[in-house]
Amino acid sequence: MENFLFGAAYYDEYMPYDRLEQDIAMMKEANINVVRIAESTWSTLEIREGEYNFYHIDRVIDAMEKANIDVIIGTPTYAIPSWLAKKDKDILARTKNGDGLYGGRQNMDITNKTFLYYAEKIIRVLIEHTANRKGVIGFQIDNETKHYGTAGTHVQQLFKEYLIEKFDTVEALNKEFGFSYWSNSIGSWDDLPDVRGTINASYACEFEKFQRQLVSEYLAWQASIVREYKREDQFITHNLDFEWKKFGASIAQDGYSYGVQPDVNHYEAAKCLTIAGTDIYHMTQDELTGAEIAFGGDLIRSLKQDNYLVLETEAQAFKNWVPYPGQLRLQAFSHIASGAIGVMYWNWHSIHNSYETYWKGLLSHDLKSNPTYEESKVIGRELKELKNELMHIKKINKVAVLVSNEALTSLKWFPIDKDLTYNDVVRWMYDSLYKLNIECDVIFTESDDFEQYETIIVPALYSVSETVLNRLLQFVKNGGALIASFKTGVSDEHVTVYHDDQPHILNECFGVTYNQFVEPKNVTISGIAPDKDTNIKYWMELLKPNNAEVMASYNHKYWGNYAAITKNSYGKGKAIYIGCYTSEEVLQEVYKLAFKEYNLGHNIQKERWPIIIRKGIGKDGKQLYFYMNYSSDEREVICPYDKVIDLLSGDTYKVGERIFLKDWDVRILKEAD
Amino acid sequence: MENFLFGAAYYDEYMPYDRLEQDIAMMKEANINVVRIAESTWSTLEIREGEYNFYHIDRVIDAMEKANIDVIIGTPTYAIPSWLAKKDKDILARTKNGDGLYGGRQNMDITNKTFLYYAEKIIRVLIEHTANRKGVIGFQIDNETKHYGTAGTHVQQLFKEYLIEKFDTVEALNKEFGFSYWSNSIGSWDDLPDVRGTINASYACEFEKFQRQLVSEYLAWQASIVREYKREDQFITHNLDFEWKKFGASIAQDGYSYGVQPDVNHYEAAKCLTIAGTDIYHMTQDELTGAEIAFGGDLIRSLKQDNYLVLETEAQAFKNWVPYPGQLRLQAFSHIASGAIGVMYWNWHSIHNSYETYWKGLLSHDLKSNPTYEESKVIGRELKELKNELMHIKKINKVAVLVSNEALTSLKWFPIDKDLTYNDVVRWMYDSLYKLNIECDVIFTESDDFEQYETIIVPALYSVSETVLNRLLQFVKNGGALIASFKTGVSDEHVTVYHDDQPHILNECFGVTYNQFVEPKNVTISGIAPDKDTNIKYWMELLKPNNAEVMASYNHKYWGNYAAITKNSYGKGKAIYIGCYTSEEVLQEVYKLAFKEYNLGHNIQKERWPIIIRKGIGKDGKQLYFYMNYSSDEREVICPYDKVIDLLSGDTYKVGERIFLKDWDVRILKEAD
Amino acid sequence: MENFLFGAAYYDEYMPYDRLEQDIAMMKEANINVVRIAESTWSTLEIREGEYNFYHIDRVIDAMEKANIDVIIGTPTYAIPSWLAKKDKDILARTKNGDGLYGGRQNMDITNKTFLYYAEKIIRVLIEHTANRKGVIGFQIDNETKHYGTAGTHVQQLFKEYLIEKFDTVEALNKEFGFSYWSNSIGSWDDLPDVRGTINASYACEFEKFQRQLVSEYLAWQASIVREYKREDQFITHNLDFEWKKFGASIAQDGYSYGVQPDVNHYEAAKCLTIAGTDIYHMTQDELTGAEIAFGGDLIRSLKQDNYLVLETEAQAFKNWVPYPGQLRLQAFSHIASGAIGVMYWNWHSIHNSYETYWKGLLSHDLKSNPTYEESKVIGRELKELKNELMHIKKINKVAVLVSNEALTSLKWFPIDKDLTYNDVVRWMYDSLYKLNIECDVIFTESDDFEQYETIIVPALYSVSETVLNRLLQFVKNGGALIASFKTGVSDEHVTVYHDDQPHILNECFGVTYNQFVEPKNVTISGIAPDKDTNIKYWMELLKPNNAEVMASYNHKYWGNYAAITKNSYGKGKAIYIGCYTSEEVLQEVYKLAFKEYNLGHNIQKERWPIIIRKGIGKDGKQLYFYMNYSSDEREVICPYDKVIDLLSGDTYKVGERIFLKDWDVRILKEAD
Repeated sequence: MENFLFGAAYYDEYMPYDRLEQDIAMMKEANINVVRIAESTWSTLEIREGEYNFYHIDRVIDAMEKANIDVIIGTPTYAIPSWLAKKDKDILARTKNGDGLYGGRQNMDITNKTFLYYAEKIIRVLIEHTANRKGVIGFQIDNETKHYGTAGTHVQQLFKEYLIEKFDTVEALNKEFGFSYWSNSIGSWDDLPDVRGTINASYACEFEKFQRQLVSEYLAWQASIVREYKREDQFITHNLDFEWKKFGASIAQDGYSYGVQPDVNHYEAAKCLTIAGTDIYHMTQDELTGAEIAFGGDLIRSLKQDNYLVLETEAQAFKNWVPYPGQLRLQAFSHIASGAIGVMYWNWHSIHNSYETYWKGLLSHDLKSNPTYEESKVIGRELKELKNELMHIKKINKVAVLVSNEALTSLKWFPIDKDLTYNDVVRWMYDSLYKLNIECDVIFTESDDFEQYETIIVPALYSVSETVLNRLLQFVKNGGALIASFKTGVSDEHVTVYHDDQPHILNECFGVTYNQFVEPKNVTISGIAPDKDTNIKYWMELLKPNNAEVMASYNHKYWGNYAAITKNSYGKGKAIYIGCYTSEEVLQEVYKLAFKEYNLGHNIQKERWPIIIRKGIGKDGKQLYFYMNYSSDEREVICPYDKVIDLLSGDTYKVGERIFLKDWDVRILKEAD
Repeated sequence: MENFLFGAAYYDEYMPYDRLEQDIAMMKEANINVVRIAESTWSTLEIREGEYNFYHIDRVIDAMEKANIDVIIGTPTYAIPSWLAKKDKDILARTKNGDGLYGGRQNMDITNKTFLYYAEKIIRVLIEHTANRKGVIGFQIDNETKHYGTAGTHVQQLFKEYLIEKFDTVEALNKEFGFSYWSNSIGSWDDLPDVRGTINASYACEFEKFQRQLVSEYLAWQASIVREYKREDQFITHNLDFEWKKFGASIAQDGYSYGVQPDVNHYEAAKCLTIAGTDIYHMTQDELTGAEIAFGGDLIRSLKQDNYLVLETEAQAFKNWVPYPGQLRLQAFSHIASGAIGVMYWNWHSIHNSYETYWKGLLSHDLKSNPTYEESKVIGRELKELKNELMHIKKINKVAVLVSNEALTSLKWFPIDKDLTYNDVVRWMYDSLYKLNIECDVIFTESDDFEQYETIIVPALYSVSETVLNRLLQFVKNGGALIASFKTGVSDEHVTVYHDDQPHILNECFGVTYNQFVEPKNVTISGIAPDKDTNIKYWMELLKPNNAEVMASYNHKYWGNYAAITKNSYGKGKAIYIGCYTSEEVLQEVYKLAFKEYNLGHNIQKERWPIIIRKGIGKDGKQLYFYMNYSSDEREVICPYDKVIDLLSGDTYKVGERIFLKDWDVRILKEAD
Repeated sequence: MENFLFGAAYYDEYMPYDRLEQDIAMMKEANINVVRIAESTWSTLEIREGEYNFYHIDRVIDAMEKANIDVIIGTPTYAIPSWLAKKDKDILARTKNGDGLYGGRQNMDITNKTFLYYAEKIIRVLIEHTANRKGVIGFQIDNETKHYGTAGTHVQQLFKEYLIEKFDTVEALNKEFGFSYWSNSIGSWDDLPDVRGTINASYACEFEKFQRQLVSEYLAWQASIVREYKREDQFITHNLDFEWKKFGASIAQDGYSYGVQPDVNHYEAAKCLTIAGTDIYHMTQDELTGAEIAFGGDLIRSLKQDNYLVLETEAQAFKNWVPYPGQLRLQAFSHIASGAIGVMYWNWHSIHNSYETYWKGLLSHDLKSNPTYEESKVIGRELKELKNELMHIKKINKVAVLVSNEALTSLKWFPIDKDLTYNDVVRWMYDSLYKLNIECDVIFTESDDFEQYETIIVPALYSVSETVLNRLLQFVKNGGALIASFKTGVSDEHVTVYHDDQPHILNECFGVTYNQFVEPKNVTISGIAPDKDTNIKYWMELLKPNNAEVMASYNHKYWGNYAAITKNSYGKGKAIYIGCYTSEEVLQEVYKLAFKEYNLGHNIQKERWPIIIRKGIGKDGKQLYFYMNYSSDEREVICPYDKVIDLLSGDTYKVGERIFLKDWDVRILKEAD
């Protein structure tokens, strides 16, 4: 791709009247150069079994081609037609909550044979029909795919086969999962109980892992079909999304992209894609911090250690998310600063009925111009002008945050606190980096990339194999810096708590252990950041250092003798263990002390959030610095670089000069000769 | 009717021992002149199929006749006998929540053939048995009928026929409901999906409209049976009730009459009645405001533009609703002030077991006198004395509040805010009138009466046909004053958002439009009522006036350029648009400014709540003024009338004289010669 | 038994590796002398139908025998193997919430024939196998048995037979339960409706009583089987537990032992046991008050008016319950002070997987020593040293709190307030005694022991037969002191409100009645404890004294004329009626006034909580005084006894001498000669 992809999802099918020419004219005004189509329109494509209708597809591709707007084709499989649901009573996923009812999307059993038969047919027909079109630059397979909790008879039969393959004997299964507890042991594979009723966390978590594997297999299957038709230059992508956090608005489906996706293993799922894609939604107005854009981008970029597409992000969804002036532009450049090479809004026009009526697009329901659309014109123009500078910027980070689906799932069964989830810990550790302007990758335990980092940050890695723990130990031994939180290394990959010193294996590098942990009530820590909020919440481990140095202790009548945070040298490396949930300020102080002491200070900028600085290397090898003001106030920073030019304004700055940023402003400083 | 109907529901069937004579003696002491019987006693009437037992019916009618107490017969159909439920597994309504279990009331599929067969039989047997009795003055058909969410196979088949009748082709349906969204389009009527699973608001709202139509048809069917037997002088009524708002007490079924009934179209349902009836329950003690009595009464009276019956209201239900001294009397006269010609308590005696044990009647469980019963004696005596003055008073209002079932239902799907329902907006607009002592009618969009008003108040009329919008536009053009809130005129009758300028059609008379709306956070308005609470909550539209004058703007860094409230002249009329949810004080200020400017000031009284003034015209054509003190403090008002006499005390007042009202007191001032 | 039983539940089956010798060594160090085994291990005992495996049972009994540690065998029936669940689709209890899914424990229909057949077989096999073992000192039948809401077809058939037996005719049933209400009357036993759908509180409460009876019968059946095998010296016990109150932690199954068990009639269930046993769990750290230990102990001891076993209590469950130093020891002696002759922890070792992973045992997951285990060593040593002093101490109380399953169940249907349950009232009345150091028994209405008390305290005895009411009246007449709360004597045993003066029958001794009650809003009382918190919450009855003396009145504009608390003389006795929910301080003041006036002052100690004093009589007839400091502060008390010796320290004190108690300390003072 030469151009930065700037666009939107486009649904000719949903339009109240024929507006195609008018829409394209407005798109061109905004320098929109790509639309995504078709991904939810199965019933339009095939209103009756085998009766295909390409009216909307063809006219949109034709018109876009004429207008020089690229097209991404989405396979339409994530929402099935009513006639298909009626073909096989097992098509809709049977879950813990019982049988499904037709109506919504993303509700099928993705292993169901009937579904797969018809899905394959429509995929083949659609891709064959469109792959040869010039304007079609790539394909999105399915949409925000998950396993939808599918747990019907067929899925459980597959799971049984998976378990037999994995454990061979029921005795092995009984032992690994602790099935003797509460008489769950089985004497025959036929006695394997319905997983939906289980209270055994090992069994339940293994099932969720299996369900995530179904997602990867399903996506790989779709990709393999598309590959039969696509041209070499056409990409295959998918919009991987995140754990969704409700924010309590009254609107249907309110929420935003919060953390690691529980229902998909992004690392595995991304393997079949030629380019990773993602959907990122976030709070806006006064709540716009940029953290979700950065977190999501860092995670998706790290999957393939490459640039990626933002296939969906918000334009002006419902009353909560109408951006302030400047915010839409700031958001777009924030995605780019994380390595995105495409930003597409969901969606072009606000839909006039059904369900997502108030997930408003660039155009409101009146389909006229409005302040948000007007701002997209500014973005489109700037992106066009800067395409040579901003495409395929490289990101090289020496810090990684290590995440894990297994840790997430197991902590749902054994929560740290009702108000502290795995993703809360991930975001606590990630956001504290982000606000310090320490850029990082976000990698999975499956990744082979540990050794390329100087520092690995490990949030609450509760369920983790000895293999991974040994790799982390080796990472420290070899000179790496490891910073891990409480609840790390607690249980094995089958959610069995290790029966020796905690944290298992890693206590060797941390130089600390514990065997009691308590609820903090009116507990503070001392020894670090005395001027910050030193309150401890949700969780505290009573750490007993062996050779570790105590960085912080608890202030408490009875627990005062225990350590709260420790540091240790091990091999050529260093290891910090954080035994409690602190304020972000305290965690930032730990980071700063660590990076200073470990000579990793190059990672730290002087500026802090709401000024965000993100770096990248342009195609010409020059360093780019994105300066972003995440606040409603004007800010001023001092230029720390010898000489830079702001690509957006053309202004140049020398070291020591003042750089002004208006509210929600962005500057892209490039090293100048 | 000659006498004001003062009475109670009476259940001889539930009595712990034979108390009929004793009860009648106590009723007579209280001048109670009517009882409602039979309406929940099917299993007593027909303990086994076809085995009828009129023991209780006959002895009560006999005894009441002897005592000169009238009887209203309720058809017993709203609670079915166990033997009937066992006859047909489809009798209990199958709803979104699955199959019903026998036990409660109001749980049947009102379209079920078996139910209707046996219901018809028992209605015929009962009405035939009682219609010829002298004391029987009328019939109540069923009881607080709703559709009970009925959505089983048979109902959905009827709905399919209704849709075929309405849309003719699946293509028309697909288009009107936006079924292309998420692949919901159907290629054949047989593919119509189960409405219980739908995410399509248009489909779901149409189904609810259809369900409300089932209620109207069911009541009309019962009325038609009763008409075959009843005498000319006997009335047919039904106790229409209201959206029930829980107030968080621990008692089973806690709640009170709050707003428009979601499950019944009162306007349509009332057509089969000879007199409208209602059930009104409300908070009491310190929370007694009179607003529910006024709102419910104004709505029910407006249905047939005639007097109505309060068939149920509370005596002293559970711990929360034991009235303070004076309140029961104040409540009774408040009903009359709205045009009621009957006030009946639910119920005479507190029930000793089962379920509604603490919905206590006039008598507590000891069946002896108590302060509440004692107060009923005062009321009964006064009503008897004043019957010539208080029967059939006429209410003539020039202001109407316009409500709509469609707006209510559609806003459940697209809520303004999780804490602001349609009825909250209705009550915000109604109560602000009420507290200003501006009397109004409450009319439905189906009503033909628009032109009889000077002012129409329109709360959040979200889903509304172009026909109604054009009638409103015409109303203004012809000289009417229209005051509408945000979220009016947004979508058509099929809940499809209009795709041109908002508010659709009416933007012409309001002279204002908008295409963005946001969540107000720390936003106030300026330009109106600077000394009141000017905070905005829940919703704000960013109004762009065309020719309208700005009454209020937002105070906000980014939204400060938009208007919040506007006024405009259009044709011979005036139109005010309120784009945000304000405090009641601010809304009252808007009303006052409007009424003053539009020369509608005759509607406004000097007094404000907690002094409530309601007007009526007596049979002799004289004006009556009900003065009511809704507070625990004594109040004093200045007589604004030339000469009036208080019908209750006989005191006379001249203009400028002070009138004292004790706590929770009432005075009925009549124009004197 | 000679030795105080100090031990833990032990699960060799769950161990991650063979630790038996190591565990026993650690047990011996802590003077642990008993383990409970087998009670949840059916699937290990019988992995396939009829294939028995005693590997773990035998090796544990062998090893324990060798180590001189006694063994209690639990029948394994409370968690069934998967193969059994698959045998009969009706084995898992069908409840209000539908069909069960296999997975957890305590989920079977305890009347199911298939279940009972296999349960009997495994019980016989296990008991036959173990009863002759020397170290086996007794048997626990099942575990925390309840009815699990079982309400399937078979159970309802049994219930129908129970009702026919009880009422003989449907007419009698209709009348007693008020089935005429909402057409619930039946004309034939075959029309009896599914109890799961009923809204009739009488029917529903009778069913819950029947379900409790099923529990008693089931336990008696298990006991009868065990009796066929057990030696004379072996006991039969069961761990009766309490209503579980969630405390809002995030951990699975969080909660603690709060009040009367709703699902078991402890009085009836205990009849088949040779010694009562119990499970008591409670808050700890700053929330440790001792109240749950005292309440549970007093109730269980009173069942058989004898010593009892604490079969389960917490060691250091999850983060919330890790004890402060001293607390584990204080807890152990608190159990003894209530009459326990055994304290067993649940459990020995923390389980490494499945579900209750963080209900941690004496050993943490590392299976090494830790502060909690270390403290158990102190306890074990002290118990061993003091066994002659502390075994079988006798408790003689003159005060009893009277509780009732029927009152509890009926108040679920007719709650006093959403925030005030029956057990809240029980605990309000019990805890106020406890904190005043007034010891009491906790007896059921079924008990014959009324006459042995001087004072009976009656919390909210809502549903109660005339027989019990007459016994209470007689108790007063004969010279007893009765102190009852609001909502006492309201309805009969079939939850039909009495239709004469409230409180039924007892108004004679209280000299007071009422027929109205209200929600208190900003109401205080005057006349008592003016320096305390006199606010009234949740409930107030408007009391009209006949001959009673008013102890307190309400401060309220309208309710000020009514009494709030009254006292009266009746026969040779006294009776206090408390018509409202006061603060604990006010209730304590009522108690103190009553005990003073009624010459029952011998019950009151000078000290108050957090100093708790509990008394007992040792085997040698000497008085023992347990002094316990339930606080983090050191406390000092003055010795009121002529001469006592602290059995723990050997210190002696004379009257007037100061006795120091460290934080969470205990002293056991024994009368010295």
